[in-house]
Amino acid sequence: MSAMNIPKSSFPRIIIIGGGFAGIALAKKLSKKEVQVLLIDKNNYHTFQPLLYQVSTGGLEPDSIAYPIRKVLKDYPNFFFRLANVEEIVPEKKEIITNIGAIHYDYLVLATGSETNFFGNTEIEKNGMEMKSIPQSLNLRSLILENFEQALLTDDLHQRDALMNFVIVGGGPTGVELAGALAEIKKGILPKDYPDLDTRRVQINLIQSGDRILKEMSEKASKKAEDFLENLGVQVWKNVRVKSYDGKLVSTETELSFEAATLIWAAGVKGAAIKGLDAKELLIRGNRVRVNEFNQVIGFNEIFAVGDIAGMESEEFPCGHPMMAQPAIQQGRNLGENLVKLLQQKPMQPFIYKDKGSMATVGRNKAVVDLKNFKFQGVYAWFVWMFVHLFFLIGFRNRMVVFVNWVYNYIRFDREARLIIRPYKRDYTRFKD
Amino acid sequence: MSAMNIPKSSFPRIIIIGGGFAGIALAKKLSKKEVQVLLIDKNNYHTFQPLLYQVSTGGLEPDSIAYPIRKVLKDYPNFFFRLANVEEIVPEKKEIITNIGAIHYDYLVLATGSETNFFGNTEIEKNGMEMKSIPQSLNLRSLILENFEQALLTDDLHQRDALMNFVIVGGGPTGVELAGALAEIKKGILPKDYPDLDTRRVQINLIQSGDRILKEMSEKASKKAEDFLENLGVQVWKNVRVKSYDGKLVSTETELSFEAATLIWAAGVKGAAIKGLDAKELLIRGNRVRVNEFNQVIGFNEIFAVGDIAGMESEEFPCGHPMMAQPAIQQGRNLGENLVKLLQQKPMQPFIYKDKGSMATVGRNKAVVDLKNFKFQGVYAWFVWMFVHLFFLIGFRNRMVVFVNWVYNYIRFDREARLIIRPYKRDYTRFKD
Repeated sequence: MSAMNIPKSSFPRIIIIGGGFAGIALAKKLSKKEVQVLLIDKNNYHTFQPLLYQVSTGGLEPDSIAYPIRKVLKDYPNFFFRLANVEEIVPEKKEIITNIGAIHYDYLVLATGSETNFFGNTEIEKNGMEMKSIPQSLNLRSLILENFEQALLTDDLHQRDALMNFVIVGGGPTGVELAGALAEIKKGILPKDYPDLDTRRVQINLIQSGDRILKEMSEKASKKAEDFLENLGVQVWKNVRVKSYDGKLVSTETELSFEAATLIWAAGVKGAAIKGLDAKELLIRGNRVRVNEFNQVIGFNEIFAVGDIAGMESEEFPCGHPMMAQPAIQQGRNLGENLVKLLQQKPMQPFIYKDKGSMATVGRNKAVVDLKNFKFQGVYAWFVWMFVHLFFLIGFRNRMVVFVNWVYNYIRFDREARLIIRPYKRDYTRFKD
Repeated sequence: MSAMNIPKSSFPRIIIIGGGFAGIALAKKLSKKEVQVLLIDKNNYHTFQPLLYQVSTGGLEPDSIAYPIRKVLKDYPNFFFRLANVEEIVPEKKEIITNIGAIHYDYLVLATGSETNFFGNTEIEKNGMEMKSIPQSLNLRSLILENFEQALLTDDLHQRDALMNFVIVGGGPTGVELAGALAEIKKGILPKDYPDLDTRRVQINLIQSGDRILKEMSEKASKKAEDFLENLGVQVWKNVRVKSYDGKLVSTETELSFEAATLIWAAGVKGAAIKGLDAKELLIRGNRVRVNEFNQVIGFNEIFAVGDIAGMESEEFPCGHPMMAQPAIQQGRNLGENLVKLLQQKPMQPFIYKDKGSMATVGRNKAVVDLKNFKFQGVYAWFVWMFVHLFFLIGFRNRMVVFVNWVYNYIRFDREARLIIRPYKRDYTRFKD
């Protein structure tokens, strides 16, 4: 047996690192082809990242937006999965090094996605919350609920307000959706759950460095989303940059500051590069590995990158494609077809991104949708948003469970998954001085 | 404001410690009565313990068997909830001491439930797994899945077998239901998920100290459950007592021993007594607080105990009532009515347990049900088991989500929640020597 107990095969071995949208789309295209595929991920499940904010805000259970990777691959012969962290890539030996051993590849595909970008601000990294994974979202859920339990116990109004002040940095879809969900909790759930707390004092502050939120979308969508948020009671701050956060005080580059127990950092992501392929000259802005139009890493014939980690510069996308599900899925599929062509010594097809539009939801009956020739907002957009997200969720059971939750939440104005399953340990004493 | 920010009230204050079956049943009976109720629990949710084994085995998401306590109480005026650990009871001062402060009571109700009883064996406590709470069940889920991932990686057959050997100690409903669920995973899921592993070598050993499993049920139920388990491939060992487990070797009082990476201890529970009311003379066997027929703690007029923690000795139940949901619910309700009577200076009604029967499920189409005059097993019993469990689950959403999962799992022979959301950190190297 070779390392990791992957049997030798007469087919070439393709290693895919990462079971996100790109990795799974690629794997599906390689099913029943004459290749041996090894998919490696640090989790045994695929995460449907667009709905993480609903896990954080008690609208969905984490299990309904995760899907076992082994189940995706179960009908594919010559597919292997290993739960492991990839520590280094050694291109000259065609080898990856992981915590469970080293292994040889014939072709390697990076589909590692992206991670939160704190732009070097270690203080915010330490004191802020992020929301890129299921455990992080559950930590945030616990913290939000713990804050209210804690607010009940203090007589110090100052401290109580800080515990009920949520500062969200970043006006992209994640920040907007989270702010909207928190505002709905404030309105629909907190007054009933905490009758002994003045929950009108809950503040939700959304901070955006630019002059509009949802800046990747149309101006109309930005404007309408801002209206929706303000109607829900969210304070939207534009042209403000957060400078520091010590766990108590959010300082900005202007005079504006906030005393807040919770800062959620949704202000940027960067490619999750791996040692051995992370040299500065290999990367474009955003820590993404530079690839050609075939998703081939520049300078390496056998290494490819798809999804958020892939930096494919073009005239239309000088900084690479948007770091979203659609480009990842499309690149994964295109590369799958190209790898088959490559093995058959046929010419590969360059990747062309088909923009299917973008959307964001703010709350109940409130969403914004930009299609190529048609932009709309409101109730209809909200139903479209829900339909599209249900459609892209992997697994019939997940779709049904999410659907049941959404119908229930809609009818009852409720979110029942407000459970602190694992407390997010935090130092409550820091507000005591 | 008084401690914990509970406002003063002209009504007497009843503190309930614990939001399990007994505490919730009691709280519901006290709604709209002239009392102030403070419910304290270390979690912000009620746990439906009978289905924990399905969380451990990937059949259900944890959120679907938990219910926010605040939501139970939300329509009750004069009800307060605090998330806290009770550290001590000081009866002479009518006070409880918690991690968030001390507080006075007029009446106190212990509804703390039970915890795993290792009978003083600290080695098993350290190396074994328990399944009395949602985090514990999730740890077990993670461990089971990690074991298979780990088994894939070793060339040492001995070690691989140990990783795939599950020893369950205790032939009560928990042990039986868990053994059955693991057997179904072995049959239906592992061969597809781990095509590169010889999952026929998975062993499930159920160890019972007495001469039959499900000893609280009828002999017919015991016999049939054992048949079901053996048909599913579970090894049932009777009249065997486990002596020690160092994390690798399970030793028994006979010559029998098992090399196993996982031991699940389901061999006993004991009352979760609290300092201040845990003196030896206050307790009966099983660490339960001795109460009279009104659930009043002997020697204390203002302190009551209901559910697993209550030790009500009687001719029919010399060691107190079975530590199960039904006695807890019935005692909670009866005490609720009695407290109202007490405040109105009317005589209290003694508790009389109405045995509604008992049941256990072994697997798909396989359950055993004992009613007073009717005992049955098999498919029909299985449907009754499911119906009863859905009925007793709190919350419409939970019922729907559990129902969707069960229908899906039944039709597809599947369990999709096989996710390692939080790895259960364990030392994989211990099998390496």
